[in-house]
Amino acid sequence: MNASASDPLVLFMPSGKRGRFAKGTPVLDAARQLGVYVESVCGGRATCGRCQIEVQTGRFAKHNITSLDTNISPKGPKEERFERVRTLPEGRRLSCSATIEGDLVVDVPQDAIVNAQTVRKDADDRLIERNPAVHMCFVEVEPPDMEKPLGDLDRLRVALADQWGMHGVQIDPWLLPIAQQVLRDGAWQVTAAVHHDCERALPRLIALYPGLKNEAYGIACDIGSTTVALHLSSLLSGRTIASAGASNPQIRFGEDLMSRVSYVMMNPEGRAAMTDAVRAAISKLIDEVCEKGEIERRDILDSVFVGNPVMHHLFLGIDPTPLGGAPFALAVSGALTLPARDLGLDLNPGARTYILPCIAGHVGADAAAATLCEGPHRQEEMMLLVDVGTNAEIVLGNARRTLAASSPTGPAFEGAEISCGQRAAPGAIERVRIDRQTLEPRFRVIGSELWSDEPGFAEAVARTGVTGVCGSGIIEVIAEMYLSGIITEDGVIDGALAERSPRIVAENRTFSYVLKDQGPRLTINQTDVRAIQLAKAALYAGIKLLMDKHQIDTVDRIGLAGAFGSFIDPQYAMVLGLIPDCDLDAVKAVGNAAGTGARMALLNRGHRREIEDTVTRIEKIETAVEAKFQEHFVNAMALPNKVDAFPRLAATLTLPPRQADQSDASGASTAPRRRGGRRNRR
Amino acid sequence: MNASASDPLVLFMPSGKRGRFAKGTPVLDAARQLGVYVESVCGGRATCGRCQIEVQTGRFAKHNITSLDTNISPKGPKEERFERVRTLPEGRRLSCSATIEGDLVVDVPQDAIVNAQTVRKDADDRLIERNPAVHMCFVEVEPPDMEKPLGDLDRLRVALADQWGMHGVQIDPWLLPIAQQVLRDGAWQVTAAVHHDCERALPRLIALYPGLKNEAYGIACDIGSTTVALHLSSLLSGRTIASAGASNPQIRFGEDLMSRVSYVMMNPEGRAAMTDAVRAAISKLIDEVCEKGEIERRDILDSVFVGNPVMHHLFLGIDPTPLGGAPFALAVSGALTLPARDLGLDLNPGARTYILPCIAGHVGADAAAATLCEGPHRQEEMMLLVDVGTNAEIVLGNARRTLAASSPTGPAFEGAEISCGQRAAPGAIERVRIDRQTLEPRFRVIGSELWSDEPGFAEAVARTGVTGVCGSGIIEVIAEMYLSGIITEDGVIDGALAERSPRIVAENRTFSYVLKDQGPRLTINQTDVRAIQLAKAALYAGIKLLMDKHQIDTVDRIGLAGAFGSFIDPQYAMVLGLIPDCDLDAVKAVGNAAGTGARMALLNRGHRREIEDTVTRIEKIETAVEAKFQEHFVNAMALPNKVDAFPRLAATLTLPPRQADQSDASGASTAPRRRGGRRNRR
Repeated sequence: MNASASDPLVLFMPSGKRGRFAKGTPVLDAARQLGVYVESVCGGRATCGRCQIEVQTGRFAKHNITSLDTNISPKGPKEERFERVRTLPEGRRLSCSATIEGDLVVDVPQDAIVNAQTVRKDADDRLIERNPAVHMCFVEVEPPDMEKPLGDLDRLRVALADQWGMHGVQIDPWLLPIAQQVLRDGAWQVTAAVHHDCERALPRLIALYPGLKNEAYGIACDIGSTTVALHLSSLLSGRTIASAGASNPQIRFGEDLMSRVSYVMMNPEGRAAMTDAVRAAISKLIDEVCEKGEIERRDILDSVFVGNPVMHHLFLGIDPTPLGGAPFALAVSGALTLPARDLGLDLNPGARTYILPCIAGHVGADAAAATLCEGPHRQEEMMLLVDVGTNAEIVLGNARRTLAASSPTGPAFEGAEISCGQRAAPGAIERVRIDRQTLEPRFRVIGSELWSDEPGFAEAVARTGVTGVCGSGIIEVIAEMYLSGIITEDGVIDGALAERSPRIVAENRTFSYVLKDQGPRLTINQTDVRAIQLAKAALYAGIKLLMDKHQIDTVDRIGLAGAFGSFIDPQYAMVLGLIPDCDLDAVKAVGNAAGTGARMALLNRGHRREIEDTVTRIEKIETAVEAKFQEHFVNAMALPNKVDAFPRLAATLTLPPRQADQSDASGASTAPRRRGGRRNRR
Repeated sequence: MNASASDPLVLFMPSGKRGRFAKGTPVLDAARQLGVYVESVCGGRATCGRCQIEVQTGRFAKHNITSLDTNISPKGPKEERFERVRTLPEGRRLSCSATIEGDLVVDVPQDAIVNAQTVRKDADDRLIERNPAVHMCFVEVEPPDMEKPLGDLDRLRVALADQWGMHGVQIDPWLLPIAQQVLRDGAWQVTAAVHHDCERALPRLIALYPGLKNEAYGIACDIGSTTVALHLSSLLSGRTIASAGASNPQIRFGEDLMSRVSYVMMNPEGRAAMTDAVRAAISKLIDEVCEKGEIERRDILDSVFVGNPVMHHLFLGIDPTPLGGAPFALAVSGALTLPARDLGLDLNPGARTYILPCIAGHVGADAAAATLCEGPHRQEEMMLLVDVGTNAEIVLGNARRTLAASSPTGPAFEGAEISCGQRAAPGAIERVRIDRQTLEPRFRVIGSELWSDEPGFAEAVARTGVTGVCGSGIIEVIAEMYLSGIITEDGVIDGALAERSPRIVAENRTFSYVLKDQGPRLTINQTDVRAIQLAKAALYAGIKLLMDKHQIDTVDRIGLAGAFGSFIDPQYAMVLGLIPDCDLDAVKAVGNAAGTGARMALLNRGHRREIEDTVTRIEKIETAVEAKFQEHFVNAMALPNKVDAFPRLAATLTLPPRQADQSDASGASTAPRRRGGRRNRR
C-alpha cells in the first residue's frame, strides 16, 4: 500500500476494514487492497455497474473519521455515461471510477440491483457477503498476430493474467471447440467466467461470452428425504431470484431413510433408480426456477448441494447401504468440487458443483450447512442446534469447541407410529389447548386460523376435514395432557380421571384421551405417549451427552431447524423435555438453515473454507457407544425429566408438582429401542 | 538429509546424482532424496518388484568411490520371499529393501522386466528415462471406525498423504460410486492410480484397484495427415508393448491439409465428420494394440497426442479454417491436459490426455514432439531438424537459441505435381543411377532389392510392375540428371544431349529424360524439374532465413524426420540443395521423431515441462513476411544453389563445374508460388 499517515483514511462498511490510501486511488482499488469484496465484471471500465458503493457522510466519532461528499471525486465522463445509459441510483457511485480525495466512510451495498430484472425478497432476509467461486471477467484479448503465434485461448490466458491477475488459468475442455468463434463474435472482447474455488487449485475458465456478460447465476439445493428445495441466486448481486420445492420422488421407494437403504439392499437396480429419481426432480426444479427467473439453464455456472448422508450418497450415485449399519461408513465425507455435468446436471456445460462436507455417518452435509448458517462456531454463546427428523442431528458448541451427534428419535415426531398421527398437511391438528379444569380440548388445524371452539370453525375446515394430528400437534397435546394432569411425570395416562371427564376412556388395561370424538375419532392412547417419550428421550439423551462433554448444565441459545422446528412451540417442546431448559426468548426456529447454508456456500467461497475447516474441528460423538447414553435416556423418559430441573421454563408457566423419585410406573420399554442397529433417519 | 561427511557415498547411474546417506538407509529412499526416479508401486513392501537396482562393484577412480558387494545389506526375508515367488534376475536387488552399508555405485536399469509379459523391442531402441504423470500407489487404508467418521475416500487421501507424501489429492468423480466397493474388495489394501502431471496442479486420483495392481499403460499417438501411428507403452517399465498404424481416414475428405480445411469451409458438418473419422481410426488402433499386448482398454491410464496444427485442431474438435489463411491463428497453442473421455476416448474412465504444444500456426505439436525427441535445445551443436511434407517444418538451433519456421514446399516431394510421380508404394522407383557417359539409367523399385540391370529384376517386379517414381526416386533422378550433365545448374534439360542419347527427347519447346521407355513409359520433363526446383527452393530459403537469424553459414547436424526423411539419400538431397552443406555423416534420418517425442512425453512428465518451456522460448519466424525470403528463394532455384558453396558435399563426389553467374535461363516461375495464401501442408 505504501500509504503515509497523512493519506486519507477510508473505512469500508459493513466489514469495518480500513486503511490509508493516496489521493486519487480508485475506491475499488482500495477495497481490493483491503480484501473487501466488491463485485466487478468489466474490470474498471465503468460499463458493468456492479461495483456500486455509497459514501456515508458525517462525523463518525467512534472511528474518528469525518466523511464528506467532497472527499470523493466528482463523477467523470465514464461514470456520467453509465448513469445516462444505465441509470445509477441516487447516492450511488461506481467505485472503479470514483477516487479517494479525503477521509471516507464507504458503504458496500449487498443488494445492488443493477439489472432491470425483478428480484423477489429472500426467503429468510439474510444478506450474504459475496465472494463467489465463479468470477465474471471482461477482458480485451489481443487479436491474432502472425509474428506472435500464441493461440486464441493462450492470448486469453495472458489477458486474464494481465488484466485480472489470474495466473495459470486452465481451460475447460468443452470450450476448446467454441472459444475461437466466441472471441471473434466479441471482436476480441469477451467475458470469461473463471471458477476459482480453492486457492490451492488452479483457476479454470468454465464459460466464455462475446462482449460484456453482466449476469451469472447459481443454484443452492437442500435434498431432504421428504422434500427437495432449490434456490436460484445471482452470483453478481447475491439476490435470490427464485425458489422452488418438491417432494423427493424417492418416497416411492421408501418413506424414510432406512427403508430406502433397505430398498437398495434388496434391489440391484435400486441405487441407480433412486439416483435418477432425485436428479430428475432436481432437474424439474431447475426448470421451474429458470422459468420464474426468466433465465436460461446455460447461465447457471455454479451449484451447491447439501443433504443428509443417505441423500448425499444417492445424489452422488453412491451405494448408501454401508450407512445402514455400524460403523456407518461414509464413502466420502469431505467437501467435493466437481463438474456439474458429471452429476447429470444440465446447466452451463462448464458449470461446477460444490458439495458440503458430511460431519459423520449420520450427521450429513445438511447439518454442516445448518451449522454454517447458524454459526455456533462463530459465537461465544453456547448454542444448541437441533434438526429433528427421523434421526435428530445435534450440534452443540461455540467458538472454542463444537460437538455433533445424532440420536435415533424415530419417526414419532413426524406423526408416524402415533395412532392418530399424520404428516403436516391441511386438515391436520397443529395446535392444542386443554382446559385445566374441564379437561376439554380445543385445537387448530392446518389451513385455518380459527380455534375449534370459535364460531365458523366447522365451515373453515369443511373442505379438508380434521383428519389427524401432525408432529407439532402431538407435542402440544401430550404437553397439555401433562400440564393438565392427565398424564403423570412418568407418562402414564391417569385412569382415575375417567370419573372427572368422559375424555378419559379405558382401552384394554390402559387409558386414552379423546381429542376429537367424531368423524373421525382421534384419541391419544398410552402407546402414543410412550412413542413420544421414547423419541424425546433419545433426543434429549443425545443433547445431554454433548452437554456432558462440554461440562455444562444449560445452553445459551437453541436453534430448531427444519420444518418440525418451524412449527413446534418451543415452550411445549421444553415442557416435554425435548430440549434442555433455556430462556424461551433464546429458543428460535431457524427455518431451512441447511438451505440457507447452501446459499452461503454458493455466494461466498470463504464460507466453503469455513465449513470445511469447522467440520474437521467438530468432535463427533457416537451416541451408540457412549456409556452414559442409557442413563440419560432413562432419566429423559420422565416429563420433562427425572433429574434435570427446568427453572427457566418454570418461570413462564406452572409445571405440575414433581413426584418423589420412584421407579417407572409402566415398567415397560424404557430402554431405547435399537432394532437392528441404528434407527431410520430423516 | 542431515548426512555427515563420514556417511557412505552413493552414486546413482546413469543420472550421475550422488549424495551421502546414513548406514541403513534403504537405497530407494536415497534415490528419492536425490530426485533419482525409481519406480515403486507397493511403497516399499517388497511385493511389486518395480524398484530393482544393480550394484556396480569396483574402484571408480573418476568418482573416487570403491563400490563393494558388501556395501549393500544382504537380502532380508521380504526380498528373499519376492525372489522365491517372483524371481529376481541375477545381480538385481529391490532398492526398497536393500540398505546402504558403505560406498556404492548403483545402476538404475531402465529396462526392468518384472512381469512375465512378452515385450517387443522398441521401434527406435530409445530408452526413455521414466517419470510418468500417473503413479501407481499401493496403500493400506484404515478401515472405517465409528468414532472417526472420515469417509472411505477421505481415509484413502490420508493414506496417500502419509504413505506416499501426496497431499491434496483430488478425486475423479467417476470413482465416487465405485471406491467404496473397491476398498472392501481389497480389504482396505488398494492401488491408487494418481495423476500428477504439473506440480502447480493438485494430484488427482483417477483409478483405484483392489490389492496390488502392478501394471499401468499409456498410449502415444502421432496423428499425421496421411497416417496415424500409435504406441502402447507400459508406464511402469517404459517398454513399448505394441505399435500400430493406419491411414488417416480424413483422406476421403481431402488428400492434403488445405483441401481438408476447404472441406470444412464448404460443409457445415465437415469439421465434426473429420473429428469423428480420426477419433474412430484412433479407437481401432487402440483395439489393435490392446489385442497385441493382451491388455484391457481400462488399463490405459494416460495418453499423449501430437499432430500438425490442422490435425491437432480436428482431433480436439476445433474448426481449423482460421489456419487456412493469414494470420494462421491457432485456437489454442499451449499444451493441454484433459480427461481422455472428453475427447471421446474409451480408455480407463479416469484416463488423462496430454497434448503437446503447437509451435506456431503451421508448426505443430508434431514438430514440438520431434524437437523434444532430437533435442536441438539440449545440445551445443547447431542442429537443423526438417520434416518434409506438403509443408516443411524447420527447426534450427542449439541450447542457446532455437528458431522454427515452415516453408510451403508443396506436394512435389511426395510425388504429386510430377508427371510420373506416385506415393511411396510397391512398384514405385525409389533409387536411380545414371551413367555419366551413356546417360543410361538403372533403378530400384520398392519391393525388390535388385537394380533394374541385375538378373532377375523383371521377375522380381513382375507382380507389382514399375508404376511410377516416388519422392526419394524423384530426388535421385533429378540429382543424377544434374550430376551427369543432363540438366544445368539452372535446371534446364539440355536439348543438345538428344544427339548423344535417345533418352533425351523433345517435348514441345522443352526436353524430357526417358527414365523407362515401356509399360508404362516414365519420363522426367522440364515441368517436373521446375516443380522440384520450386519445392526445394522454398525449403532451402526457409532454412536459410533461420541460418541468417543465427548468423551462421553452416550447420553441425541435420535430422531428416518423417517418412520422406527416412528414404531420401542425404547426399542426393544435398546435391539438389534441399539442405545446406554439411558432413554427410552428420545427416541422419531420425524416423518418426514426432512419435518418439510423444512417447517421451508419455513416459516422463519432465519432458512435458521441457517441451512446454522450449516452445515458449523457440523464436517463430514467419517466412511469408521476411524480406529476404524472396532473394534466398531465387538463389535456391539453382542446383545446388546460385550463391552458396557446398564444400563438404564436393569432397564426397564430383559436382559439375559452376556456371558463371547468369540470369535464369527459363525465365519462368522463379517466384515462390503462393496460391491464395499459405500452401497446403503435410
